[in-house]
Amino acid sequence: MKRKGILIIIDGLGDRPIKEFGGKTPLEYANTPNLDKLAKIGILGLQDPIKPGQPAGSDTAHLSIFGYNPYKTYRGRGFFEALGVGLDLDKDDLAFRVNFATIKNGIIVDRRAGRISTEEAHELAKAIQENVKLPVEFIFKGATGHRAVLVLKGMAKGYKVGENDPHEAGKPPHKFTYGDEESRKVAEILEEFVQKAHEVLENHPVNEKRRKEGKPVANYLLIRGAGTYPDIPMKFTEQWGVKAAAVLATALVKGVARAIGFDVFTPEGATGEYNTDEMAKAKAAVELLKDYDFVFVHFKPTDAAGHDNKPKLKAEMVEKADRMIGYIIENIDLEKTVIAVTGDHSTPCEVMNHSGDPVPLLIAGGGVRTDYAESFGERECMRGGIGRVKGHDIVPMMMDLMGRTEKFGA
Amino acid sequence: MKRKGILIIIDGLGDRPIKEFGGKTPLEYANTPNLDKLAKIGILGLQDPIKPGQPAGSDTAHLSIFGYNPYKTYRGRGFFEALGVGLDLDKDDLAFRVNFATIKNGIIVDRRAGRISTEEAHELAKAIQENVKLPVEFIFKGATGHRAVLVLKGMAKGYKVGENDPHEAGKPPHKFTYGDEESRKVAEILEEFVQKAHEVLENHPVNEKRRKEGKPVANYLLIRGAGTYPDIPMKFTEQWGVKAAAVLATALVKGVARAIGFDVFTPEGATGEYNTDEMAKAKAAVELLKDYDFVFVHFKPTDAAGHDNKPKLKAEMVEKADRMIGYIIENIDLEKTVIAVTGDHSTPCEVMNHSGDPVPLLIAGGGVRTDYAESFGERECMRGGIGRVKGHDIVPMMMDLMGRTEKFGA
Repeated sequence: MKRKGILIIIDGLGDRPIKEFGGKTPLEYANTPNLDKLAKIGILGLQDPIKPGQPAGSDTAHLSIFGYNPYKTYRGRGFFEALGVGLDLDKDDLAFRVNFATIKNGIIVDRRAGRISTEEAHELAKAIQENVKLPVEFIFKGATGHRAVLVLKGMAKGYKVGENDPHEAGKPPHKFTYGDEESRKVAEILEEFVQKAHEVLENHPVNEKRRKEGKPVANYLLIRGAGTYPDIPMKFTEQWGVKAAAVLATALVKGVARAIGFDVFTPEGATGEYNTDEMAKAKAAVELLKDYDFVFVHFKPTDAAGHDNKPKLKAEMVEKADRMIGYIIENIDLEKTVIAVTGDHSTPCEVMNHSGDPVPLLIAGGGVRTDYAESFGERECMRGGIGRVKGHDIVPMMMDLMGRTEKFGA
Repeated sequence: MKRKGILIIIDGLGDRPIKEFGGKTPLEYANTPNLDKLAKIGILGLQDPIKPGQPAGSDTAHLSIFGYNPYKTYRGRGFFEALGVGLDLDKDDLAFRVNFATIKNGIIVDRRAGRISTEEAHELAKAIQENVKLPVEFIFKGATGHRAVLVLKGMAKGYKVGENDPHEAGKPPHKFTYGDEESRKVAEILEEFVQKAHEVLENHPVNEKRRKEGKPVANYLLIRGAGTYPDIPMKFTEQWGVKAAAVLATALVKGVARAIGFDVFTPEGATGEYNTDEMAKAKAAVELLKDYDFVFVHFKPTDAAGHDNKPKLKAEMVEKADRMIGYIIENIDLEKTVIAVTGDHSTPCEVMNHSGDPVPLLIAGGGVRTDYAESFGERECMRGGIGRVKGHDIVPMMMDLMGRTEKFGA
């Protein structure tokens, strides 16, 4: 029997015990009737996106979950960020993730320029693209919020270049380091770019307005994550012979999805931020599942709440994801669908960053065995019927239940 | 302490929830007092014959369980089938699995010629061997039922040849495809062979008699599974320093057992079919365990019931296997023996083929830890003390309990 598949990744889902929750994790504390329903009829487990104890990035974790060995595939985040904002790159391009930031007296006072809006950032990006001249061709494009992407055309050989991001406020930007002669050239170009962009930004009308409103100005660029063309041996869609769609807003993950052959969709209202419209995503997923064999839905704000050490907010974001899933399961034929829910990694509040803790995993729908687990949470997952698997096991297990694997042998 | 080992493989054992069983699997639904007794005193788990989500063939799964990487070892089923019917092959032979089938007006109307008897098939095979002349030396031999084996001497280089089996009734046979020049020669020989065999079979007395009785005639050969000498680096018996015997009827698995050094035994009444005499196998296993260190018992009909989508029959076949196991454990010293029971793969009724679902695993006997699991079934195995392991972990775990492993390090 052929079934369709839907994979929902709740970013940074896994956590550790929270004292104010009496030792429960945000996922255990949250009220999640829909996930619990799936847990009852399906099967739970834990998955290590890469391997036990190894914190994964969102990019490497998604690569791994979609079946690619990140140690062989991964060539830096910048490339996925650039793909994620819709750029089509060449094999010899070098791409970077950029933050709009606020600098004052040579000190970075806000790494995100007061979380400047997407519209403002796009206007600033346009001014930079038009007014900055460099010795090489470049593309500078705004993504969402304070995020942007820089591409240096034809400079891939200089990928051994560092970053100017000090990673905390109150410090001056770093000088770009470099690992070889080609990368030294890139470092010089980046220094020149940052300086010229600063001049364009400083008195730009967008910033004049922010200054008047008492908001941090976006007058500096922090550049990191040099990335080149990833080594994707075969696209996900070819490998499994499926038509695949992704519903998501986050550029980095969008880039991964594009790189492996997914058609990507960002419904109106899906922002990747706390205010994201989960129902818009749910509806898009249900619609796409009519045309596509495999739909991947990415839900971002849980991760941000972990990074911000806000357990209550993280639990609320889990509840938001649960509502999204509720709409989806009410509007599909579960017997003819395999649904998997997991995170790309754990982002425990106490760590305020990704950790190597294994991530809760749930598989339900047609043909799925059941276990004794009753609700979706770290503790129940430990006694689930999937056991402890690797991130790269998830898709083959789904495809097998979807009737899309081939026997090896007779 | 040195112990003996007995490994019982119930073919296609694992399954998915069956609606008419209230969501239980055939193994959970079946009445299995002996397996449950072993589950209570032993330890349970789940094993992936190859890897999660990857459906294994019976040949590749057995290779994996006996410790061989099937991706490196496997060279097609035909060779194991040929070894399984007792042929001794050379490194440059090319072997095939053959079905006696029924053709009418150019259409295959029965892929198994009405499940013709072993005796009839052997008589027909003899007629083909004696009357067909080919440009190369060949061996054609009946196996069990409608199954036979063809060996083309010295033609191994032409292994990139397809099959003429359309894999469903109501279709014409396929032409043999080929991947290179050597294989083109093999394809031509096979076309000639099939045509000449058809002429021998059409009016053979065995078929004249079947025609009169209104039975499907065995007047055509379907050929598939080209196989050459497998890459077995060291025999199982050498690797572990054990004397090993196998009790089984299925040619394919017999071939694997022979290839890795087992002495193979097929007791009278062991057919590999629904009617197999499980007590004959049990008695043979108990007898052999007196002389041998390691005895492997293969039980086939559970797999057939899965392929046929007959959950009740599958449960009955599980009960048959349970009776076989009951006789064995009553007639051996369990303290001095390690007994493992598992399947080579799952054959869920809903799939009607092998799936990538993990397979129940049980280990009991002397020295074995106990867990909280109380009966042998998919759900109990999920909470078993073995956890989720790979097929190739089973034998080392057994050998360690049997006191036959060596410390690595100091």
